[in-house]
Amino acid sequence: MLVIKLGGSADNDATPLITDIARHWQQQPWFLVHGGSARVDELSTALGHPPRFVTSPSGFRSRRTDRRTARIFTMACAGDVNKGLVEQLQASGVDALGLSGLDGRLLVARRKKALRVVENGRTQMLRDDYSGRVEQVNGSLLHLLQQQGHLPVISPPALSTEGEIVNVDGDRAAAAVASAVGARTLVLLTGAVGLLRDAEDPTSRIPRLARTDLDTAIHDWARGRMKIKLRAAAEALDGGVAQVIIAPSAVDQPLQRALNGEGTVIS
Amino acid sequence: MLVIKLGGSADNDATPLITDIARHWQQQPWFLVHGGSARVDELSTALGHPPRFVTSPSGFRSRRTDRRTARIFTMACAGDVNKGLVEQLQASGVDALGLSGLDGRLLVARRKKALRVVENGRTQMLRDDYSGRVEQVNGSLLHLLQQQGHLPVISPPALSTEGEIVNVDGDRAAAAVASAVGARTLVLLTGAVGLLRDAEDPTSRIPRLARTDLDTAIHDWARGRMKIKLRAAAEALDGGVAQVIIAPSAVDQPLQRALNGEGTVIS
Repeated sequence: MLVIKLGGSADNDATPLITDIARHWQQQPWFLVHGGSARVDELSTALGHPPRFVTSPSGFRSRRTDRRTARIFTMACAGDVNKGLVEQLQASGVDALGLSGLDGRLLVARRKKALRVVENGRTQMLRDDYSGRVEQVNGSLLHLLQQQGHLPVISPPALSTEGEIVNVDGDRAAAAVASAVGARTLVLLTGAVGLLRDAEDPTSRIPRLARTDLDTAIHDWARGRMKIKLRAAAEALDGGVAQVIIAPSAVDQPLQRALNGEGTVIS
Repeated sequence: MLVIKLGGSADNDATPLITDIARHWQQQPWFLVHGGSARVDELSTALGHPPRFVTSPSGFRSRRTDRRTARIFTMACAGDVNKGLVEQLQASGVDALGLSGLDGRLLVARRKKALRVVENGRTQMLRDDYSGRVEQVNGSLLHLLQQQGHLPVISPPALSTEGEIVNVDGDRAAAAVASAVGARTLVLLTGAVGLLRDAEDPTSRIPRLARTDLDTAIHDWARGRMKIKLRAAAEALDGGVAQVIIAPSAVDQPLQRALNGEGTVIS
């Protein structure tokens, strides 16, 4: 059982992954999760509601998600990226079926009703933000669809417990999905070659990392998006996943290479 | 077994229908199909690719769907309208699950590779248009989801036999769905009070129409969108549906009223 997460940044061309999936997907139960941050940025800008970001007191950066952004986020992720992937997969002979977290309560999140953010050194509370964290995954729906021969393609947003659209992080949603379906492996495909000891030095890739070293990495030296990927990795391992692999998406056969250990394997 | 189609024009507020569904949906297997033309128009315009329409030699008007329009169409229908309905339904306690025609090959269409259109009295051929007609519905997927307690919420576009996004008419897609699931009734909720003998006179509603009178209505006197709704009705009846009801969406309890015969019942 394998869960693949395809990152949402602009340099994550899906074509190599889709070719790879089409070649191997009959072999085992797979699930694909994706983000869409670059498309959300583009669409927000084009619609005159440019993206804004906030930083939490612990240093995590996230998208400022007012109600209008939540709708744009949904259009970009669940409408454009998701259906684009489903179209490409179907054209490659893979019977993909796209779902957002809203559909059949696939991803239920707790919305952060008061979001603490730091702006210009001062801590503020945002009360109209629609972001949160996945707390429940409808794993039986995913298994059912997979057993019928479909490849589930899963997109944020999630549904809040009150029935609202909630922006959730794609990597952490993928970790929740991997735990819920009982996946052995979670592959996080990204723009980087793996986890780098020094973010400026692409030759400083760390091939293997133990769960026991993850917390230090998250708090002391990982930077930017990689901090969130490591937090997702920790959540997946704590949820019973045996290994999390962070590996590049923009290479030939990205999935096979990741499974051969070419990124950073965390276990 | 009931298939409900909610029209996509701007005056089709979904709230009365959703209240109605939430009150009654445990009673029987229901399926909801929707369009999104008003949202497609808005989004196309906002993104600098304003809508264009073409007319077929037999007088049917349809959206000019180049590749960029196909992507925008998908974002608006499957991303915005679909997920908006799913969110509202979930917030009302209905376990809705949204799918586009691409997902699990739910709606497979034949793309019109050469589209004959009339412009300024001259017939032209368009070869880069992505529109077509549904030829196959994955009814077993719909039944499976319904049996699991979900309300399937179905959105265009469809998938072409070559695996491309194809713009299909929502009313005719609903007719194909109704035939495929073996529905007894198809309810087409729309901005009008029903079929009018005289489109300018709202008191000229025709309460009942026989299948044998449909062709005359389509060819001789129905106008605009109503022509396509009647064609959808004919397709549904020919596909084994017992009755098609055309009724208004912008009233209290639109579904109950339609089922009580308050629109135009075609059988």
